[in-house]
Amino acid sequence: MVNCIIVGSMGLDRIETPFGKVMDEPGGSAFYASVAARFFTKPGVVSIVGKDFPRQHQQFLEAKQIDLDGLKVEGRTFRWDGLYEYDMNDAKTLNVELNSLASFRPVLSERYKDAEFVFLANTHPQTQIDVMEQLRKPKAIVLDTMNYWIDNEREALMKAIGMCDVFVLNEGEARMLFDNPNLVVCGRQGLKLGPKAVIIKKGEHGALLFKDEHIFASSGYPLELVKDPTGCGDSFAGTLTGFLASQDSMSLENLKKAVVYGSVIASFNAEDFGANNLRKIKKLDIEERMEFFRRLTEF
Amino acid sequence: MVNCIIVGSMGLDRIETPFGKVMDEPGGSAFYASVAARFFTKPGVVSIVGKDFPRQHQQFLEAKQIDLDGLKVEGRTFRWDGLYEYDMNDAKTLNVELNSLASFRPVLSERYKDAEFVFLANTHPQTQIDVMEQLRKPKAIVLDTMNYWIDNEREALMKAIGMCDVFVLNEGEARMLFDNPNLVVCGRQGLKLGPKAVIIKKGEHGALLFKDEHIFASSGYPLELVKDPTGCGDSFAGTLTGFLASQDSMSLENLKKAVVYGSVIASFNAEDFGANNLRKIKKLDIEERMEFFRRLTEF
Repeated sequence: MVNCIIVGSMGLDRIETPFGKVMDEPGGSAFYASVAARFFTKPGVVSIVGKDFPRQHQQFLEAKQIDLDGLKVEGRTFRWDGLYEYDMNDAKTLNVELNSLASFRPVLSERYKDAEFVFLANTHPQTQIDVMEQLRKPKAIVLDTMNYWIDNEREALMKAIGMCDVFVLNEGEARMLFDNPNLVVCGRQGLKLGPKAVIIKKGEHGALLFKDEHIFASSGYPLELVKDPTGCGDSFAGTLTGFLASQDSMSLENLKKAVVYGSVIASFNAEDFGANNLRKIKKLDIEERMEFFRRLTEF
Repeated sequence: MVNCIIVGSMGLDRIETPFGKVMDEPGGSAFYASVAARFFTKPGVVSIVGKDFPRQHQQFLEAKQIDLDGLKVEGRTFRWDGLYEYDMNDAKTLNVELNSLASFRPVLSERYKDAEFVFLANTHPQTQIDVMEQLRKPKAIVLDTMNYWIDNEREALMKAIGMCDVFVLNEGEARMLFDNPNLVVCGRQGLKLGPKAVIIKKGEHGALLFKDEHIFASSGYPLELVKDPTGCGDSFAGTLTGFLASQDSMSLENLKKAVVYGSVIASFNAEDFGANNLRKIKKLDIEERMEFFRRLTEF
């Protein structure tokens, strides 16, 4: 049985930042999220790549005990071409080729339908709903989205948010979705839509977790060198889902730890291009940085 | 003897935010900073107001044991007219009348020259240097500045930073001064200029403290209602200076606590217009919010 699944894109990226550029870098939300989640669980991946997706990337994932039964191979691989300028805050998308991703409708295998912990990375909210309806006994569904769906598919998005357990979005999306500049107001509004927890990601400034009447404010991990922020949001959410799967409870304490682990693993991710650093680090590196994080915020 | 002094502006503000507007509100950096510092020490104020400055505001400060021997009364009061729009991030200055502040050159009385803890609010860096040269035995000089001096008086500003103990600036100023988007790099560069500690304020996202090789990342206090952010930076720095004066040591632990107290008192300040909330709150309110802050960031 696969207890944790990740549903999202997989593809090949061309990334340019002030620190250099890479071509044909394996990426996509499901790539980052699964490589991050594997520190806590053995995630299954629901995604699609083309026949041109280099076999070595699948071999790497399999070697890390990531289950690829849900990875369809068809047509040509999704490609993204992004540029980060001086301040590294937002990626400019220079080019997108959806290719086989365009017609991908995730159908869960029997082995995956019993998964209890699920990360639904950003995609059309109706696709997210379709996946949620296939799950037989979900315990924690983590849902991400993006500004495009807030603008263009609000109704389906609201329904998807109401069906998930942990709704993850960034601060710009939060302000847009709730039409309010105050993130505390946004977080509380998010809870009213149905999820048990709402997490607002603030990039280098950390994250805010809302659960019932509680708020947890996590600082960002202070990095001296950010080479490439691609995939930080997905590695954050993948870690969160994987950690919850390893704990089997959605307590406030576990959610807090999940957020901090998410920040820590996302910080490693930002230190090198693509998922290169996430592929190399060991559990011990993560625990060391967790300890540093604790000292960093204790007073 | 006055052990803690605050050097800055005092005046009357007209403030408009999405939540309302106020006229003739007492303000200026020294007003906010001294009203905040008084929770920990009996600060002396070095500033200037005009003969039109309502007597009741001075009486209020005196009633709170704030020493006004350094407050000159001359000509007409400094006036500032500011507007905050929807996102409340930056004040638009609609009008400024410097009046008597224009020619103010702070001269410390004998009672003030022995002050050990000093907050030099934003003003011309040469004026800040002149004050520092009058101090006989400073233990902690806290220095603030603004983008205008970074652009136009860089040489004098660099000298002033080199003479202070704690350099406080906001994230935009930090990126501008060190020509680097990375705040960790900026903080470390700041330490190289001479101060024992550098604090980068990030508004609602909290603050970063740099001391030797240590970093402390303080979250912002999550406020559901921000009515008027005027004076938050000055009440933060005033609190910091006042708290250090009450501790008589610049240890990392004390600096961390000073930053959190600063964030807490600034959060009270933002909840009402002008310094209205700072004038009303009690030490117990502050301690309660400190405890809440601890729970908010513990994991």
